[in-house]
Amino acid sequence: MKIDPHPTSLPIRDVQPGIPDAIRWIDHAEHPHLRLLDQTRLPAEITYRNCTTAEEVHLAIRQLCVRGAPAIGVAAAYGLCLGTFSERSSAESSLSKAVQSVSTYLKGARPTAVNLGWAVDRTARCFDSTAGQTSSQRWARMLEEARRIHMEELNACRKIGEYGSPLINDGCGVLTHCNAGALATVGYGTALAPLYVAQEQGRHFRVFADETRPLLQGARLTAFELHRSGIDVTVLCEGAAAALMASGAVNLVIVGADRIAANGDTANKIGTYSVALAAARHGIPFFVAAPASTFDLETPNGSAIPIEERDRSEVAECGGKIVVPAGVRCYNPAFDVTPAELVSGFITPKGLLEPVSEQKIRDFFPLSPCNAPR
Amino acid sequence: MKIDPHPTSLPIRDVQPGIPDAIRWIDHAEHPHLRLLDQTRLPAEITYRNCTTAEEVHLAIRQLCVRGAPAIGVAAAYGLCLGTFSERSSAESSLSKAVQSVSTYLKGARPTAVNLGWAVDRTARCFDSTAGQTSSQRWARMLEEARRIHMEELNACRKIGEYGSPLINDGCGVLTHCNAGALATVGYGTALAPLYVAQEQGRHFRVFADETRPLLQGARLTAFELHRSGIDVTVLCEGAAAALMASGAVNLVIVGADRIAANGDTANKIGTYSVALAAARHGIPFFVAAPASTFDLETPNGSAIPIEERDRSEVAECGGKIVVPAGVRCYNPAFDVTPAELVSGFITPKGLLEPVSEQKIRDFFPLSPCNAPR
Repeated sequence: MKIDPHPTSLPIRDVQPGIPDAIRWIDHAEHPHLRLLDQTRLPAEITYRNCTTAEEVHLAIRQLCVRGAPAIGVAAAYGLCLGTFSERSSAESSLSKAVQSVSTYLKGARPTAVNLGWAVDRTARCFDSTAGQTSSQRWARMLEEARRIHMEELNACRKIGEYGSPLINDGCGVLTHCNAGALATVGYGTALAPLYVAQEQGRHFRVFADETRPLLQGARLTAFELHRSGIDVTVLCEGAAAALMASGAVNLVIVGADRIAANGDTANKIGTYSVALAAARHGIPFFVAAPASTFDLETPNGSAIPIEERDRSEVAECGGKIVVPAGVRCYNPAFDVTPAELVSGFITPKGLLEPVSEQKIRDFFPLSPCNAPR
Repeated sequence: MKIDPHPTSLPIRDVQPGIPDAIRWIDHAEHPHLRLLDQTRLPAEITYRNCTTAEEVHLAIRQLCVRGAPAIGVAAAYGLCLGTFSERSSAESSLSKAVQSVSTYLKGARPTAVNLGWAVDRTARCFDSTAGQTSSQRWARMLEEARRIHMEELNACRKIGEYGSPLINDGCGVLTHCNAGALATVGYGTALAPLYVAQEQGRHFRVFADETRPLLQGARLTAFELHRSGIDVTVLCEGAAAALMASGAVNLVIVGADRIAANGDTANKIGTYSVALAAARHGIPFFVAAPASTFDLETPNGSAIPIEERDRSEVAECGGKIVVPAGVRCYNPAFDVTPAELVSGFITPKGLLEPVSEQKIRDFFPLSPCNAPR
């Protein structure tokens, strides 16, 4: 099935044939809602949650029903529209208050991915910039912005795929960690986009997907979407990644990112830093794929990135069974920081950014997306 | 409870108070058997398997009911006695044939831990060295040797604890991978022995236990035995180990080993190599604790160590749930090899071996245990 590489309007079918869209906005005049693929139930079940309130979107983000930095940004932008929908016929002050409180609320859902706050703020600013118009018009402008973000991220993923695909040689082995694919975004994914484009271009290669404890997004999601796309994928425990590299089977690592600091330090799913260390040891290029919204030039380096620590139960229980004895603590950070010096380059919608330097990042993204004028 | 640090006969109580012995020989004249703690059911249940045949011992080793290099060596030595018990009143030729076939069979249970073949061969050689005696006497001599190996490993663990305990400073953080504790051995453990001795000596410290996918021996077993011993233990996914080291919480790493080659390359549970790379990056000493039986001077380096690859289902299923989509392959090596240059030193029953060099290993163990005369 041929798909439009550069859509100019939001697609009405799944962007990647065979892979259910992570996010779809259902544009009903009286009862608009956000349809989210429930990623916690994959690969066993393909089910959706229909969110009609900001609370439901917040919960879906917290519970990782929707996850991946670009996807939670888009979901939260729509969440702001849902959370203020009931005020669209109210007085300006009511809508204004709602925009402010819902924004703050949604931005608190998860701390590490910078895309979340960026997308919410960008959407909220469209309320500010439309002073003088009716509440209904101002709300519509916010929704337009959420859809624009959605479309931009879709196109950014495609661009990442096009710029990254020359890295994927015929016959090569590519290792990835966690899921930064179609399910983590609103299109081709970030880390997986180059693979999808290389496949379209007729190249054959092999992907190794770290299972990614504790929530197994690599096993459950990356294997699911690559396998459905007909790409050769093998799952491994991340503890086996260094041995796999030592065996010579891996020629390239591509991962996504939740936040990239001004100096290039990269926060991504816990375990990424270990993969980067092993890649460096074996001279394997380590690339990070991310849209502009993931670069945070306001954060000078990795030590300033807030790292979410998640519940003990994610480690202590496995498939519903208790595996850690009662009374024993668990350390469960959701992300780690890979120092910029271990990153061979960034695959961005503006091209390959390599070698990594703060100057080059500022050249690529002269205005930090968080502060770009609207 | 005070325990005898250097027993001269096999203890009749659990070696470590509160931690069930992994292995106990039940010395019944007509129905001898081997009582193995079923480690696949921990921490939920403390249950035992009574093995009366070599087949049952083989299965228990394959299924990881008993695991850990020193423990499977001892179990297999007893397994040889069980597998030849019915021939102890037969003609010499029948017993001889049984010793040979049962040895070969048991040595095939798992390939990586050198202790397995070493213990079986050592026990079998006691049959060869008693030519001229009755079959019953020769069988009794093999059992005596199995018990001697059991006792020697018990004392070796204690010695490892005594030589390693000075590394454990008050207030320090120690990271370990998999389980190389009481449950993996017949006494104090190897990697955990220095911790138990440091605790006896009144020092307080904190242990971080990698959960160790796919079979979670760190979460299930290391946390179980340390917590029962009153040692402060925190479980983490191994993907979080590098981030934990970056945070400054880890001062020392101690792991066990399944086979150490002549040059010091060390095979241990999959994921150990990643831990070693992260420790090196952060300047954290990385020690390997092992008895003489784990040093294999006949194997020149890590590339010559056979690595067991285990079943797909260990990765594809988690707590009984399918987590990897059907049709997707899994890579599941049970061990990896850490190059000698990443090992700060070996903690052995003969003292600390550091820095690591082939010459020093040969000085410590002038006769490879596999070939030592009896």
